[in-house]
Amino acid sequence: MHVLVIGAAGMVGRKLVERLLREGELKGRAISRLSLYDVMAPGELPPATFPIEKLTGDFAAEGEAERLVADKPEVIFHLAAIVSGEAEQDFDKGYRINLTGTWRLLEAIRKADYCPRLVFTSSIAVFGAPFPERIPDDFHHTPLTSYGVQKSCGELLLMDYTRKGLLDGVGIRLPTICVRPGKPNKAASGFFSGIIREPLAGVEAVCPVDPEVRHWFASPRAAVGFLIHAAALDGEQLGPRRNLTMPGVSETVGGMVEALRRVAGEGVASRVRWEPDPFIQGIVAGWPTTFEAKRARELGFEAESSFEEIIRIHIEDELAGKIA
Amino acid sequence: MHVLVIGAAGMVGRKLVERLLREGELKGRAISRLSLYDVMAPGELPPATFPIEKLTGDFAAEGEAERLVADKPEVIFHLAAIVSGEAEQDFDKGYRINLTGTWRLLEAIRKADYCPRLVFTSSIAVFGAPFPERIPDDFHHTPLTSYGVQKSCGELLLMDYTRKGLLDGVGIRLPTICVRPGKPNKAASGFFSGIIREPLAGVEAVCPVDPEVRHWFASPRAAVGFLIHAAALDGEQLGPRRNLTMPGVSETVGGMVEALRRVAGEGVASRVRWEPDPFIQGIVAGWPTTFEAKRARELGFEAESSFEEIIRIHIEDELAGKIA
Repeated sequence: MHVLVIGAAGMVGRKLVERLLREGELKGRAISRLSLYDVMAPGELPPATFPIEKLTGDFAAEGEAERLVADKPEVIFHLAAIVSGEAEQDFDKGYRINLTGTWRLLEAIRKADYCPRLVFTSSIAVFGAPFPERIPDDFHHTPLTSYGVQKSCGELLLMDYTRKGLLDGVGIRLPTICVRPGKPNKAASGFFSGIIREPLAGVEAVCPVDPEVRHWFASPRAAVGFLIHAAALDGEQLGPRRNLTMPGVSETVGGMVEALRRVAGEGVASRVRWEPDPFIQGIVAGWPTTFEAKRARELGFEAESSFEEIIRIHIEDELAGKIA
Repeated sequence: MHVLVIGAAGMVGRKLVERLLREGELKGRAISRLSLYDVMAPGELPPATFPIEKLTGDFAAEGEAERLVADKPEVIFHLAAIVSGEAEQDFDKGYRINLTGTWRLLEAIRKADYCPRLVFTSSIAVFGAPFPERIPDDFHHTPLTSYGVQKSCGELLLMDYTRKGLLDGVGIRLPTICVRPGKPNKAASGFFSGIIREPLAGVEAVCPVDPEVRHWFASPRAAVGFLIHAAALDGEQLGPRRNLTMPGVSETVGGMVEALRRVAGEGVASRVRWEPDPFIQGIVAGWPTTFEAKRARELGFEAESSFEEIIRIHIEDELAGKIA
């Protein structure tokens, strides 16, 4: 089976590729070819028993999506995106990649005249405050960022192209991914990872919001699991509602630091400094806190069951089990 | 005040223009210029005390929206659309006019660098079955037609461009407009009007669905009222949620014919022949039936209070009070 990963050099993309290489199969079938695409080449990869193509380019450029689907990959993971903070700062760039680019990919598949499984990463940013206490699966989209609007339009297009039989799409709304390894990216939600990652690495971290602020999380490992599971879902069973809110862990920032204390001790937890920033508090106030994610759980998607588990996964996957 | 109507030759557009000409004002201010745009020229218009421009063209063509907003009209009504049935048959045409065209209009306003009130006609087609018994204002969009997807994307873009201060948009989700005068158009919902309009004109009509089928209606007169009211709404009061489900009348097809009997007598009502068509029943089964429309009612939008009233308005406005 030929698999294409668009956005393969990003954090989740890289981890997805590593898992595909490790397992060598998807949907119970052996992978025979893996095409990786991003604006920059992915780093070194573990050895594979099948050919790997590394492609780079400008995703939204005319003809680019046609090039990517020319050989008709049977499963396409579409993770390419301008993140929330950057899409908010650069209106044109966000729309160009996140909406025009996604639409061009759908059109390219339509023109290639075959019906691949397309897994699209959407986001809980499609939702905007005010919210009920637990957001049900049928809650409307009123995004308060351009990124959220772009993802929401992508979901709608995915649904329509699927209904028309032009492709076989599944959209998954990822929780905020935590703990992100490495350097902060331009996402406005970066501090959620920073206040866990930095203390575990022996570095002080500033938390710019009050301890009561609650949000919705899943680990990078869970995110990769969602993608793999979405690739294998039965389309008939899904019906026309092709976009799903993924399960996650609802936790307050105070609860996160408490979990850090339990996992790594007082010395580590005390590296978090509380310095509320009204500007960031204002942005975060518009974000969702807790979802039911009933349908996704029924369909077999699995996230962590506590924030402690999310921290332990970070220590296992990124720190080789060691805490500074 | 300079007012622009895009889609001025359509049924609702013509009625809106007639009302603007009759009243000579909008938002409590005198109209000084009225620009009418459509793919074809509107018919004869009543005399006006201000200049009227009649423009024709291809709405989605490059540069066309720029031409329309070059003189910076202060209120823009955007009613141009490929209707549901046609957008379903001609995938490219529907997307080109309903999504690309709408997006280009928003971009043209952004580039013209001013902030007009833009009233956008969306539709209850943004919703798709299954539904709760009464659909709340915060119910999600899972359209089962390309038209519904295009309108839903238009709403999202309108919301984002408004949030960014690039324009001042209000989207109104129209109920199925009934009774439509004149010939049937390509909308799949045409029979709802046919079973009232034809019998009142002395002609037999076929109802292709069971009497129990329920749907959501407003008269053309109410639709024009919604547009005028939307033009004058206070944007600050609205906040970021700029798209509103309009009020309407929830009625079954059987109840509609009963109302026709009460208004026009047994002779007229008996002109409806019941010939359920499984294909049309299947389509209609995916359509919404009853909305709360709480927010729009609180904001002062008003629809009819019964289907009898809808029929009486048709007789008044289209038949000069006479029944065949």
